[in-house]
Amino acid sequence: MSRPIITLTTDFGTHDHYVATMKAVILARCPDAQLVDITHDIPPFSLYDGAYAIDQAAPFFASGAIHVVVVDPGVGTDRKPLLVEFQEQLFIAPDNGVLSLALARDGRSTAREITNRELWLPSPSTTFHGRDIFAPVAAALAAGIARPHDVGPLLENIQRLPDLQPVESEPGVWRGRVLSVDRFGNVITNFTPPAGSFSLTIGQHVITELRQSFGAAASDLVFAYVGSSGYLEVAINQGNAAQTVKAAAGDTITLRLRDTIE
Amino acid sequence: MSRPIITLTTDFGTHDHYVATMKAVILARCPDAQLVDITHDIPPFSLYDGAYAIDQAAPFFASGAIHVVVVDPGVGTDRKPLLVEFQEQLFIAPDNGVLSLALARDGRSTAREITNRELWLPSPSTTFHGRDIFAPVAAALAAGIARPHDVGPLLENIQRLPDLQPVESEPGVWRGRVLSVDRFGNVITNFTPPAGSFSLTIGQHVITELRQSFGAAASDLVFAYVGSSGYLEVAINQGNAAQTVKAAAGDTITLRLRDTIE
Amino acid sequence: MSRPIITLTTDFGTHDHYVATMKAVILARCPDAQLVDITHDIPPFSLYDGAYAIDQAAPFFASGAIHVVVVDPGVGTDRKPLLVEFQEQLFIAPDNGVLSLALARDGRSTAREITNRELWLPSPSTTFHGRDIFAPVAAALAAGIARPHDVGPLLENIQRLPDLQPVESEPGVWRGRVLSVDRFGNVITNFTPPAGSFSLTIGQHVITELRQSFGAAASDLVFAYVGSSGYLEVAINQGNAAQTVKAAAGDTITLRLRDTIE
Repeated sequence: MSRPIITLTTDFGTHDHYVATMKAVILARCPDAQLVDITHDIPPFSLYDGAYAIDQAAPFFASGAIHVVVVDPGVGTDRKPLLVEFQEQLFIAPDNGVLSLALARDGRSTAREITNRELWLPSPSTTFHGRDIFAPVAAALAAGIARPHDVGPLLENIQRLPDLQPVESEPGVWRGRVLSVDRFGNVITNFTPPAGSFSLTIGQHVITELRQSFGAAASDLVFAYVGSSGYLEVAINQGNAAQTVKAAAGDTITLRLRDTIE
Repeated sequence: MSRPIITLTTDFGTHDHYVATMKAVILARCPDAQLVDITHDIPPFSLYDGAYAIDQAAPFFASGAIHVVVVDPGVGTDRKPLLVEFQEQLFIAPDNGVLSLALARDGRSTAREITNRELWLPSPSTTFHGRDIFAPVAAALAAGIARPHDVGPLLENIQRLPDLQPVESEPGVWRGRVLSVDRFGNVITNFTPPAGSFSLTIGQHVITELRQSFGAAASDLVFAYVGSSGYLEVAINQGNAAQTVKAAAGDTITLRLRDTIE
Repeated sequence: MSRPIITLTTDFGTHDHYVATMKAVILARCPDAQLVDITHDIPPFSLYDGAYAIDQAAPFFASGAIHVVVVDPGVGTDRKPLLVEFQEQLFIAPDNGVLSLALARDGRSTAREITNRELWLPSPSTTFHGRDIFAPVAAALAAGIARPHDVGPLLENIQRLPDLQPVESEPGVWRGRVLSVDRFGNVITNFTPPAGSFSLTIGQHVITELRQSFGAAASDLVFAYVGSSGYLEVAINQGNAAQTVKAAAGDTITLRLRDTIE
């Protein structure tokens, strides 16, 4: 039987002991866990970046994977700790919208509030629920000590981030946003790739060229392509598109579908 | 039977191959090891930061965990390589004080100098004892190839960092230090939380407000709270307290207990 | 039986989901894999840095280890995906020279082009072969689902990086290059340590002092030493030599062997 997978996505960085302390708590309760870091370099409190990271990685994990996502500006307030069952995986996170993108994929989800304090560390702090609540609950589920219905009552509604889906502001004109800028300066939008020709406006820049791969583009061309994310992305071959077009996560952008409006 | 845990805390960073090469050595001798990175982003040669990281993480690991701490400005000199048994865990580090905080907790410790060259890599370098001495000794212990008494003779005294404990400079006035500044700019002091009201002076700033959680504070207030570390910490809700009060690891700070002095 | 080791060396950074998504693909096909990160902080597209990292780490892993190296400026072009058998380990990488240093060690290597699409993810993207080709092939080999000869046909020649070996420009005078600058500012050259006295010129600096360890040097001395890499390296005790002598990876440097030329 294979080892249970627990993934970690946080804004804790890698300078401090926080991530390791969560792993210590998990391994003490579930020594067989296979731990996988998604990323800990989510900018502090950035729910959109966190939402994008877990949305991209989760579908490639096998059934049964448990995803712990701790981007948690409201730690210690009355925001709820959350367990969601979705596509035969489990997601554990604060109820602040950080799971919005992952749960926007097709499929039924079942959400619960994590209220069963027997699964937490004793005397939880008000500032580090990653260690005191999320990690031990994940470990209990991974180890089979608890099942989802043991963690707490069903929740009818959970928080969703606004503006995650593009909006058609006039016929053929869609307003969207930059979901993320990656290490290479590639700009990931929330537009699905258009079927026909288009113009994509980011700040002062208008992008109309579509390429199949980085290597197919001249070295100074800002071009769009169908990203590995499934979304429309913008790049410069071996250059930094985000710096050139001055794009940042969260920026509002506009897609005009020419076939439609001309 | 569960896999032996070996944790790694270093100032090697993540840009180079050094950490991976230590892991290679460990896995070649103990293929079942469960490796956990505490952090590799300790500022180069910063013993206080290293001491704080391992002190915070170690107590959450299960008995039997082996902690390898390599912050080692004296590598290649006559500083001793060290094995310490403490609270049913093992600590491997250079004898330079980097274990001071972890060993300051309650409990008896037994220290040995690592002298048994049969457990080292052949022909150890003078600059990378992490790979050549600390990693193979940890692996030998984890794999059960060696027991603690096999690594070398008992040591009566080991190095301790100075000024780790606050000092009462006059009645009710304690001089302490900043142990660490975390990724969020939270300032971790070495004061245990005072029972009554207090004033905490960091540079030009005097902090008198205590809050239960980040969310309970107005957005521009510099406040103190009982940190997840167990120490008194200083923060700004969703802001960077260390930048605001200009605090850095190692800074001297002052705590006045008002109940006492008024 | 021990768990198959798969190492990952990339220029993907740790901010994005890319590395984790590769791990998801690997674990879905080979749940027992022991994953080890060499580094993901290779500067974008830097083949020399990637070549140096995998060369240093690989020899310390046990036989059977599978090394996946993705520094891939040509992703989506006709550069070939590569599998190389060398010293009882497997190397998977784009055919762009990133394996040059590792394969320059003694031993026979057998190279194949990875062409068997049955081992890839369905519908591979043109921009993320790490996820769609390299990871699933590594997992198939680790899980025993495929053997090396299943991935594709033998290749006679593979790409090599130029100028990896020092060249004797006149008797006793060798032209080499800086292979890497590590986190501490130590400068790693591609010279093997000379037997007699020498002078090493980096930019405006001439280094003639050899030391056995960092601690054996005065605190402002720029000195050479036999690095843990096996190469001649340059350091300042607890200082940053690369900043002082203004050295960067790829720089051309000169070694004069005094015994020879005097």
